[in-house]
Amino acid sequence: MRCEIVAIGTELLLGLINDTNSTWIGEQLAVAGIDSHFQVKVGDNFERIEGCIRTALARSDAVICCGGLGPTQDDITRDVIAHIMGNGMVRDDAIAAEIERRFASRGRVMAANNLRQADVPVGARTIEQMPGTAPGLVCPIGNKVIYAVPGVPSEMRMMMEGTILPDLRARAGTASVIRSRTLRTWGMSESGLAEVLSDRIDALDVSGHATLAFQASGIEGLKVRITAKSDDEQTAAAILDQEEALIRPILGSVIFGIDDETMEVAVLKQLQAQGLTLAAVETLTGGVLASRMTAADPSMATFRGGQVLADADAALADTEAQARAIDQAEQARKVFGAHVGLAAVAPLASEEQRPGTVVMVASIAGDWVVETTILQPDRNRMRNYGVISVLDFLRKTLAG
Amino acid sequence: MRCEIVAIGTELLLGLINDTNSTWIGEQLAVAGIDSHFQVKVGDNFERIEGCIRTALARSDAVICCGGLGPTQDDITRDVIAHIMGNGMVRDDAIAAEIERRFASRGRVMAANNLRQADVPVGARTIEQMPGTAPGLVCPIGNKVIYAVPGVPSEMRMMMEGTILPDLRARAGTASVIRSRTLRTWGMSESGLAEVLSDRIDALDVSGHATLAFQASGIEGLKVRITAKSDDEQTAAAILDQEEALIRPILGSVIFGIDDETMEVAVLKQLQAQGLTLAAVETLTGGVLASRMTAADPSMATFRGGQVLADADAALADTEAQARAIDQAEQARKVFGAHVGLAAVAPLASEEQRPGTVVMVASIAGDWVVETTILQPDRNRMRNYGVISVLDFLRKTLAG
Repeated sequence: MRCEIVAIGTELLLGLINDTNSTWIGEQLAVAGIDSHFQVKVGDNFERIEGCIRTALARSDAVICCGGLGPTQDDITRDVIAHIMGNGMVRDDAIAAEIERRFASRGRVMAANNLRQADVPVGARTIEQMPGTAPGLVCPIGNKVIYAVPGVPSEMRMMMEGTILPDLRARAGTASVIRSRTLRTWGMSESGLAEVLSDRIDALDVSGHATLAFQASGIEGLKVRITAKSDDEQTAAAILDQEEALIRPILGSVIFGIDDETMEVAVLKQLQAQGLTLAAVETLTGGVLASRMTAADPSMATFRGGQVLADADAALADTEAQARAIDQAEQARKVFGAHVGLAAVAPLASEEQRPGTVVMVASIAGDWVVETTILQPDRNRMRNYGVISVLDFLRKTLAG
Repeated sequence: MRCEIVAIGTELLLGLINDTNSTWIGEQLAVAGIDSHFQVKVGDNFERIEGCIRTALARSDAVICCGGLGPTQDDITRDVIAHIMGNGMVRDDAIAAEIERRFASRGRVMAANNLRQADVPVGARTIEQMPGTAPGLVCPIGNKVIYAVPGVPSEMRMMMEGTILPDLRARAGTASVIRSRTLRTWGMSESGLAEVLSDRIDALDVSGHATLAFQASGIEGLKVRITAKSDDEQTAAAILDQEEALIRPILGSVIFGIDDETMEVAVLKQLQAQGLTLAAVETLTGGVLASRMTAADPSMATFRGGQVLADADAALADTEAQARAIDQAEQARKVFGAHVGLAAVAPLASEEQRPGTVVMVASIAGDWVVETTILQPDRNRMRNYGVISVLDFLRKTLAG
């Protein structure tokens, strides 16, 4: 089963919009076990859109067209598909009424061209989910199919999940289920992970039940993705459980979370499990830590607050840098009445200090834990990698 | 002159990486006045890459291949291009020596496959800029051309700007120069801008010297882009100056910056011009304001600090919300010893308060300026749009 993506819109070619839709659809197809060999972007031009769809249809079983379903005269995707299907379009009265109702309910006057969105190529069916005013389309062409979805990401995703992916899976006709689980890590390089996991990778190559892949994700850490293929959901889940159980002892505390669990969520869970609150003083990270913590804990029930301070760049000896970080961590605890205070100080590079040195301190119940780490000595990188480094330090400290 | 982009890498199709390179190249081509009708993504497969390049070459004058120039066996872009050119490859000794030198200078052992990057299709020339280990390629095919650049964004950009865009302009053979200038705005909708600027748009349609385009950029505001086309640099610049001079009185203080100037930079400039320092207390914006200000002012010479506080959600009357915001702005000023204190309070929706209400206060030299704005009442949107709203409020307050 092969499926291609055709993203439609001149603004995509002009670089005014980043085509994140194709990226997301590509990921969904991969997870569903559907091959996708090409993705194309094309402008709002009839002949060129037609050429792209025909080419895609010739070499694949399914084509997903994304964009060009709106009400303006630039939006010609449905016209092109109707032309390829060869039997014109009919207006769907129920959809027309729904579009009119939506305008009326917002008290807005509807321009007549909005009803173009209710035109459906003969032989196509509309997609049930309709969060916007333009319906998606499922257009069978012999034993192949063209899908059309709007370019608005939220509408596209709803239609993909509700109709297109299930339809593609049904067409693929295999009962096979592909499931994946991501172990989120921090503290080891990609080559380091590959080395310690080489036995597992070799064993999986032999068994063929599952695969391991690494994905560097910048300040979100390195992801280890386990993907299992099986005949049914339960077996796939069992394979993932089994593989995770084998990998965990090898990676140990390098793993901080699963799937969408970020480092800040991992830290919040640790704090909440121990009934602790947190506050931070930020010099190196200039408010990025607080902004990530408050996004994960909007009520600030656990992350009680932060202070962003200017820290005069200074060449500090080890003991001076430690003393300063301890002072700041204590200050955080006291100002915000939190159980745990967190701080990180980055002394200037000097004879004594390597470039990129960061001294991290967690102050807990009158006691301090101090750790020094070395980051790439680039100011912007240190700001951002400093956040995940200091949170990981706190996570490990809390885990004891 | 037409140019297509072929982005190469299986990870692009799998959705593991967002293809921002093609977006950026597309924008550069548009600014250079070079048509680009298609962009394609293809995986690391010889036949499929060959097919994409041949198709692109048949319908365009130039093809930019991005990615697949690295040292691993997946990196086959140069092999495919050599196959299309038909005369094999030769190793460039100078480049091989340079690659070896780079490894040696970092004290790293070089695996032999790295020297593959020094192989050059016969008839191609290498691109002079070489920030990484893989050189870019310029490969003439009759009167057409294939360019190859690495997928690493910084390397790709350097080669595009240093070699490929000038080469494309020379091939296009026209002396025409296209230049654009972006007026950054906050406080008016896209349709509002289109309405007040409709006379200018009509006038430009008639004169044909320049165009106006709008680009919604979320929390970065709405961009008004003036693009001028002329025979020479000076005339293009004069057209931009002239058009900007006509637009400025129409938009007034809605314009906060030019080109890459962000709202935080605009605020910093205002403060610095008046010799003032700033501090903030954040409840609604949870550290996002501080993180943006410290990124723009890393030494914190002007933005002296911020405090991120939990603000118990409360249904506050107008006067209560104002009093609380004034207290916080005063606190910011005092804690950090700054001239200006900034705060924003978002009372819960109530009979008295519309959802999305934000009360903003700037405290300057013992005096307060208070303004209320209404944002879309979604917590995450309020966090992020709150930052630009409160900074814009301060910018206008400082401007008097």
